[in-house]
Amino acid sequence: MASYDYDLFVIGGGSGGVRAGRVAASLGKKVAIAEEYRYGGTCVIRGCVPKKLFVYASQFPEHFEDAAGYGWSVPEARFDWPTLVANKDREIARLEGLYRKGLDNAGAEIFDCRAELVDRNTVRLVGLDRTVTAGTILVATGGRPNPHAALPGHELCISSNEAFHLDTLPRSIAIAGGGYIAVEFANIFHGLGVETTLVYRGKEILGRFDMDLRRTLHETMEKKGIRILCHTIFDRIERRADGRLDAHLHDNGHLVVDTVMLALGRTPNTAGLGLEAAGVAVGPRGEIPVDQFSRTNIDNIYAIGDVTDRVQLTPVAIHEAMCFVETVFKDNPTRPDHDDVATAVFSQPEIGTVGLAEDEAVKRFRHVEIYKASFRPMRHTLSGRDEKMMMKLVVDGDSRRVVGAHILGPDAGEMAQILGIAVKARLTKEDFDRTMAVHPSAAEELVTMYQPSYRLRDGERL
Amino acid sequence: MASYDYDLFVIGGGSGGVRAGRVAASLGKKVAIAEEYRYGGTCVIRGCVPKKLFVYASQFPEHFEDAAGYGWSVPEARFDWPTLVANKDREIARLEGLYRKGLDNAGAEIFDCRAELVDRNTVRLVGLDRTVTAGTILVATGGRPNPHAALPGHELCISSNEAFHLDTLPRSIAIAGGGYIAVEFANIFHGLGVETTLVYRGKEILGRFDMDLRRTLHETMEKKGIRILCHTIFDRIERRADGRLDAHLHDNGHLVVDTVMLALGRTPNTAGLGLEAAGVAVGPRGEIPVDQFSRTNIDNIYAIGDVTDRVQLTPVAIHEAMCFVETVFKDNPTRPDHDDVATAVFSQPEIGTVGLAEDEAVKRFRHVEIYKASFRPMRHTLSGRDEKMMMKLVVDGDSRRVVGAHILGPDAGEMAQILGIAVKARLTKEDFDRTMAVHPSAAEELVTMYQPSYRLRDGERL
Repeated sequence: MASYDYDLFVIGGGSGGVRAGRVAASLGKKVAIAEEYRYGGTCVIRGCVPKKLFVYASQFPEHFEDAAGYGWSVPEARFDWPTLVANKDREIARLEGLYRKGLDNAGAEIFDCRAELVDRNTVRLVGLDRTVTAGTILVATGGRPNPHAALPGHELCISSNEAFHLDTLPRSIAIAGGGYIAVEFANIFHGLGVETTLVYRGKEILGRFDMDLRRTLHETMEKKGIRILCHTIFDRIERRADGRLDAHLHDNGHLVVDTVMLALGRTPNTAGLGLEAAGVAVGPRGEIPVDQFSRTNIDNIYAIGDVTDRVQLTPVAIHEAMCFVETVFKDNPTRPDHDDVATAVFSQPEIGTVGLAEDEAVKRFRHVEIYKASFRPMRHTLSGRDEKMMMKLVVDGDSRRVVGAHILGPDAGEMAQILGIAVKARLTKEDFDRTMAVHPSAAEELVTMYQPSYRLRDGERL
Repeated sequence: MASYDYDLFVIGGGSGGVRAGRVAASLGKKVAIAEEYRYGGTCVIRGCVPKKLFVYASQFPEHFEDAAGYGWSVPEARFDWPTLVANKDREIARLEGLYRKGLDNAGAEIFDCRAELVDRNTVRLVGLDRTVTAGTILVATGGRPNPHAALPGHELCISSNEAFHLDTLPRSIAIAGGGYIAVEFANIFHGLGVETTLVYRGKEILGRFDMDLRRTLHETMEKKGIRILCHTIFDRIERRADGRLDAHLHDNGHLVVDTVMLALGRTPNTAGLGLEAAGVAVGPRGEIPVDQFSRTNIDNIYAIGDVTDRVQLTPVAIHEAMCFVETVFKDNPTRPDHDDVATAVFSQPEIGTVGLAEDEAVKRFRHVEIYKASFRPMRHTLSGRDEKMMMKLVVDGDSRRVVGAHILGPDAGEMAQILGIAVKARLTKEDFDRTMAVHPSAAEELVTMYQPSYRLRDGERL
């Protein structure tokens, strides 16, 4: 057996790579990991975590407004963007430190540089003038915002990366995209007082989510004052003499805004990685195809997380990392399980969802029952805020299983996490019905919808 | 068969009575209901609903403070108690109207008067100078705060009933009791700026909840500035010359406060109801004992809700009402199920809990595993608020069932509702572990606690 410098070399210090490196090292394996930017990856550095901190920041104006109905007189508050950015950066730096410390404590060797494959066992540490070898290599390089190079003027635009570090808060922004990143940032900027327009080519924001949630969120965002233009795209972006931007729409017309943000999907980070030199195949979207055990076509090279373009979520990358360690270092072949993954969209109101949308369920099941409740959350009875909460259960009428659960409203993400347990465990509508309500709560609607709102047979509403 | 004026006469227009009356009437039964105060009962009129509205009101000062870390400068806000009370009353009146309308639409006859039993089939409508007869009588008269008549000066004190309608907000309050009502009001008054002291005879607030939650909530409340005195009681209350109150403690010392509130349990409303005339037995605490189908010792008289002193919760009363209707009017004998009832305490932070506390679990199961996480909720990383969230799972080590789930922190009540589904369905720790995390959320801790914090065998910690 050949002797290598390391048992495992991990390329990429995001959620997946760090977890795999740390756990493998704690098993006594000789592990090294390289990251060219900052440990923590998209999630910690410029994704989930700073995004959610921005969401909290952007919710305060509604708290201030809502207080009046409860007897509070709140003088006008002022917002300072640089304070938010600095405080956020301090927290991110703290988390990055924890990631590094976890690796270090487990005994992994940490490189702060880019790493590229030279062959199937050799990695070049770029800038260190050094190559090292490893028995197993894990590619966990993640993804980045699609720059949309085909758009004339795209270089005048920002992506979510830059949104976390703008010097000043724009007075107006146009965001291109209809996915969760576009939607979350539209709500963040609007909440912070920015005049916000969302431009999306599709017919409704948030494709692949349940249509009731998509429509209701769309309406609610518009009611708040966010402009949403569907069925259109930007044709070109131009700098105006006054420094602002003309964002030209395909169907004529244009927007004049301070900033244009592109949120048009994410691209796997595979360019210039030396994959070709190592013989690793790359797919049509730049992703690394892997088998059920996250193995590439080269049998000692694995890939996990966003670079594989399976399910682009932090907990999925971490789960894939744990399965990888089980498979490779604990002699326990373990397939990542990508079914019934609960997710949240930190829009305002929030979305929490697990399992099948109604549209998908009717394709898979002959009989489908839909249970739906739409109501004003109790906190808004006195605030007077005209905002509805929605809950929806999708039930396979034959097995009685709850195959989808969808929530729009405060704390939907927390609820979806726990609904994920119930849906994953294949619980039935009767299991829900048997549960005593907790009063007063919003979630009690989930266990008190005794009669279906409607039924579908073979996709036809009865 | 005798002919009566009504198939069903319901005494008491709270959550249980209204539900039973409405559903029975919608089945075509001839139903009447009498309520001497206001329809909606404790829950709607002076319990759960106005309490939660007050909780929302009392949380705003923390929102205002927390905003600073997110870049917001909030000038000092002013609070007007009469505005809160008036807005709350408007909402309560709206809900009361909905209760009445539901009864009316179903065809039930509504009496706004006290009703007392004359015999097992006859009811006197007090003040209307009229008696009516019914085949079945349902007593759903609820309960009221224990006035603690043994305490000298108790007549100078308020209960939760009066707390909802104080003319002015006191500057200082002492609350006697350690149950959820005392704890919730302590947090409400403190949040609204009242100097608050909680006085409880036991060793720790919130008996019967999990000890970790009780201790952590106690510490957190003290950190906020709520004074908590355990192991003591009030000996007497006296009016001072300046109009304030001297509240004398058993172990010497006394408090000088504007208001003393007694929250020392609740008493079933059975006095003067004519139960003796009808032959209905009453228990030692003033409660009406019932069998598994909510039937009293008189076979055409049933009782549900707080008057039976089983589990004093709105959803339980409603569930008992539904079971009563199934049993009596749908020929489907149905026992109320009082196991694994999830509940929330709207303290600040909130408690959500279902199933067994650790102490109870070790009495029932030979092997117990405890999974515990304590962390700062993400919203408080930037707010700087020094407040921990706690999650705890109690697992039967032999069956692997999660037999208890306990949360202290934001949205704990919403989470407990859905955990209730999982615990009721007897899911195992492995069902939890198999669930993908939702990131970033607090609830993801519930599915990522892979190793027990500790194990217990025969009650001994290993």
